[in-house]
Parts: sequence; C-alpha cells; structure tokens
Amino acid sequence: MRELEELILKKGKVLDGDILKVDSFLNHQVDVHIMKLIGKEFANHFKDKKIDKVLTVESSGIAPAMFTAMELDCDMIFARKKKSLTIEDNIYKSTVYSYTKQEMKEIMVSKEFLHEGENVLLIDDFLANGQAAQAMIALCTQAGANVCGIGIVIEKSFQKGRKILEDQGIDVLSLARIKVLSTSGIEFVEE
Amino acid sequence: MRELEELILKKGKVLDGDILKVDSFLNHQVDVHIMKLIGKEFANHFKDKKIDKVLTVESSGIAPAMFTAMELDCDMIFARKKKSLTIEDNIYKSTVYSYTKQEMKEIMVSKEFLHEGENVLLIDDFLANGQAAQAMIALCTQAGANVCGIGIVIEKSFQKGRKILEDQGIDVLSLARIKVLSTSGIEFVEE
Repeated sequence: MRELEELILKKGKVLDGDILKVDSFLNHQVDVHIMKLIGKEFANHFKDKKIDKVLTVESSGIAPAMFTAMELDCDMIFARKKKSLTIEDNIYKSTVYSYTKQEMKEIMVSKEFLHEGENVLLIDDFLANGQAAQAMIALCTQAGANVCGIGIVIEKSFQKGRKILEDQGIDVLSLARIKVLSTSGIEFVEE
Repeated sequence: MRELEELILKKGKVLDGDILKVDSFLNHQVDVHIMKLIGKEFANHFKDKKIDKVLTVESSGIAPAMFTAMELDCDMIFARKKKSLTIEDNIYKSTVYSYTKQEMKEIMVSKEFLHEGENVLLIDDFLANGQAAQAMIALCTQAGANVCGIGIVIEKSFQKGRKILEDQGIDVLSLARIKVLSTSGIEFVEE
C-alpha cells in the first residue's frame, strides 16, 4: 500500500534492535486518514469471506481493527492483556511475548463474544515472529471459531511470522512488508 | 443520547461495587454503529472549538476517540499506561488510579505530539471520580496545551468527577449520565 510505505519512510524511525517506531501515525498518535485507507484495504481483501467479527489485541490493534470492522459492518473485539475486575472468569486465554516490552502477557477474550463457527478476521499493527497472531489463533481455536485471515499493517518480512502463518494455511495480507530495517534505511519487499 | 441509554439498559450488566459492565458494545466487543454515533455527537458539540487533537487513554478510550477524531478531521493520541521500549524519555507523564483494576498506573504522552497552544479535546469511556480525566489534564498542562472540553461516553453522575471538572471551568459532555446504578436497575439523569 503505497500511502503507508511513504508514511513509513517519511515518519518512521528505526531504533536499535529491529524496532520501527511509528508512533507519530500508527500506535500512539493516530492519523485518521491513513487509518481509514487501511480499514478499506483490509475490508476489500477479506470482504468475500463473510466475516462475522474482527479480532485484535489491545492497544495498537484497536484503531486499524475498528476501521476494518466499520467497512465490513461487523463487531470488533479487542483481546485484553490483563485480567480486569469487569471481565469474569468466563474467558478464553492464551499467552504472548512482547518483544518491545520484553515481557509475557496473557491475552483473553470473554466466551460471550467468540463462538463456534463464527468467521473471524484477525488484525494487528505489526507482524514479526507472529506471537500475537498465534495467541489470537489460539483464542479462536478454543472457541471453535474459523480464522478467515489476518490483516497486518506492517510486516517485518525478515522475521518468521508470515511463514508460520502461511504454513498453517492462513491468508495473510500485510499492507507494508519490510525487507530491510536498519538505521541507515528501510527497504520494502517488491510485490 | 437515547440510542446509548437504550443499549446500556439492554446490554449493560451491573456488578457489585458500582461497576457497570458494558463489554458487549463498548470496551471489549465494540459495536461500530453506536461508536459512529458517539463520534458524531462529540464532534458536533465541540466542533466550534477548533480542536487540533483528540486525547484519550488506552485502551477503552481509543474507539470513541478515533471516531471523534475522524469526524473532527484531526489526529488522535492515546496516552500509554506503561513505558514501552519504543517510547523514549521525551515524555509528559502523570498518575491515575484505576478503580476497576485497583492499581496505580502512570500514563504518558510523547512530547513530540502535544504542544503549547494546541486545542485538545479529551475523550474517555467512563467518568466516575475523574482520575483519568485529571491525569489527561495534567499532561496537557505540562505541554501548555488548552483543554477545550471532555467527552465522556458514560458518566456515573453519583460520583464526583463531573463536579471537579466543572469547578475547573471545563465543558463536560457525557452521552449517558447514570443517576442510580444498582443490581436492581439503572436510572439516568433527566436532561
């Protein structure tokens, strides 16, 4: 997606340790224009899969998932990362390791909102090793829901997340695929 | 806002300890239809205040803040609750106590995104004692930004948050104002 690649080149900052900082438009300050385009792109790609629900993980996935759900005219669920008093024990849960925060977190979804046979589209801001994606898949598997695909805003294509997902037969759409990420520059995969 | 009050009566659940569970449409599973209406209502009320940015706190504030920013055609910022490796030291921070999670959290915004003289609209899902609101105001004060108002999805009007904000001269718009919250029923403030 050209507008996204241009924004990454213009505003993204590469930090040590393969971290791409895009907090000026994606995951701290959010640019509504690019977010609307992102939602349309995901919805357009997955629209024939009869998506019942869009699932993401708080917090950075919420904005792109919200716009995708708006375009698909369905509900969005954001998996929570920590048990809150307002979520009861009636939950599906799985574990994810956050590289940027260097910690293990449980993510959970209430059993009330994810059901057997439902068609679920997963959305996330980043795909690297695919930890968050695998955790979301585990939630869907526990519920007996169908994972109909995954929409990723930025893929670190030099890491193994996409390969693992494709080996599971999952349709992966990444809007920006980064081949090289270094402090001297960013290169995208040529499609 | 009648549609919101009806949804609260239909789908909200009252738990012990003055907790209203609205995770079927607001803060876990998100209903895009009500969210769009919420965004329009906030934008309509605050549109003459030349809002530069919408500020909220992750995670439950993101969806309503996003739709408000879309309507106002401006950027949205979500304050982060915990320091992440991708946010540098260049931050404004303040402290908030979460009643539902029963813990103190720091919230923070990068100094890059909040500036002196900017007109900021605060958005949050709930207003009870106003802890999160005061923490967001503190971030704006540190930046020298103008707090132009606060949009609240659900106000617990029997708690003191609104009074404190109004005493500070802040324009508070709450879309549902709950007067009585008990396991035997919910009553709204009559406007």
